[in-house]
Amino acid sequence: MSKIFELPASARPADEVPLKYGVVLYPGFQALDVFGPLDALNSLSLAYPLQLYIIAETLDPVSTKPPDHLNPAGSDFAQFIIPTHTFDSVPPIDVLIVPGGVGNRAPANMDGLLAYIVKIYPNLRYLITVCTGSGLAARAGVLDGKRATTNKRAWARTVDLRPQVTWVAHARWVVDGNIWTSSGVSAGIDTIFAFIGEAYGEEVASMIADFLEYERHIDSTWDPYAEKYGL
Amino acid sequence: MSKIFELPASARPADEVPLKYGVVLYPGFQALDVFGPLDALNSLSLAYPLQLYIIAETLDPVSTKPPDHLNPAGSDFAQFIIPTHTFDSVPPIDVLIVPGGVGNRAPANMDGLLAYIVKIYPNLRYLITVCTGSGLAARAGVLDGKRATTNKRAWARTVDLRPQVTWVAHARWVVDGNIWTSSGVSAGIDTIFAFIGEAYGEEVASMIADFLEYERHIDSTWDPYAEKYGL
Repeated sequence: MSKIFELPASARPADEVPLKYGVVLYPGFQALDVFGPLDALNSLSLAYPLQLYIIAETLDPVSTKPPDHLNPAGSDFAQFIIPTHTFDSVPPIDVLIVPGGVGNRAPANMDGLLAYIVKIYPNLRYLITVCTGSGLAARAGVLDGKRATTNKRAWARTVDLRPQVTWVAHARWVVDGNIWTSSGVSAGIDTIFAFIGEAYGEEVASMIADFLEYERHIDSTWDPYAEKYGL
Repeated sequence: MSKIFELPASARPADEVPLKYGVVLYPGFQALDVFGPLDALNSLSLAYPLQLYIIAETLDPVSTKPPDHLNPAGSDFAQFIIPTHTFDSVPPIDVLIVPGGVGNRAPANMDGLLAYIVKIYPNLRYLITVCTGSGLAARAGVLDGKRATTNKRAWARTVDLRPQVTWVAHARWVVDGNIWTSSGVSAGIDTIFAFIGEAYGEEVASMIADFLEYERHIDSTWDPYAEKYGL
């Protein structure tokens, strides 16, 4: 048995930290929204005994391919991920990750996913959204009265979904209670590292970031994209 | 039809750029090695008519799960990707992406993948490796006499695979001829953006990076990880 990581003394013990993760997928999800956070957690799973459930409407493979009307170049460029559970079959989890992607735009039917968020949220330790995934959490009502952020290019479309949310335009990520919302796509990587720092220990987060050779943005208010997109 | 991107005037026309991509997968590949570059290309595929082949030994789903002896915490934390082609069935491609991951370490049998690299390389416009993927290209012999880099934590193990390569220790990525090799994991994202800048136009690369809210490292010699890992 080869140990890839030695946990630092400051690391929180395995019986205190979240161990069971779920991520929801839907057709046209944004790949990096999912695999940025998940690959940090893949690496963390070499140090802590983690479990992952990949959750979707059915057990059919879920494609990153955007709907045809959002694929103007007619590309055939997609990845297919296999779910491990459906919304109805997934066991209890500690943390749910909700990605964004053009596939969640109207008229996509997100009813099953939204109902799952409504049902599971009261039992979660943490909810983490990436990019327009916060629009899905908002539509499920779990962000009402909370501060949250989202993708900056898709800002207007997303915040219009739910005015009951206190949307924060200038933020790489926002934490309110047990909900972590991130800005667009790659912001999910900074968000998951901030989350790992909070939940497992800052030295653990640094160790994993170094393993991935990832230079973190550690200031949650760093956000040049808000200005780039006129917010 | 909704156009997500307007190509800038400086963008290279579709008949001059690489359009057909392949990525090779094997059990225990590193997810972000694949999905960092692929998600930049997913986004690029909204502007150019791109094709992607996901290539593996068989058409069975390929898991990110590390081999048991490299999973000391006993985690059950993995993602499963469906190949579209095998090494024997894949059509001609312009660009091959080779990811790293603990799954390529000895005693893993990588013969099929190495033979595919040997066979396909003479017909590629570009070969891009991420992380210890350069160790696979090196073992296939296509890096002999060329400059290349790799993961900094796995440096000694990787460069020992092939001394005929001129290994560059301090580099986020290295370009030699038509081969782009990147440092560990997240360095693949900077590398693909540098590649997109070169092959499609710098303004195209900036547009896609902004879409992903990704702050690029644009200096290929930026590499704090070489020092962190004592190189």
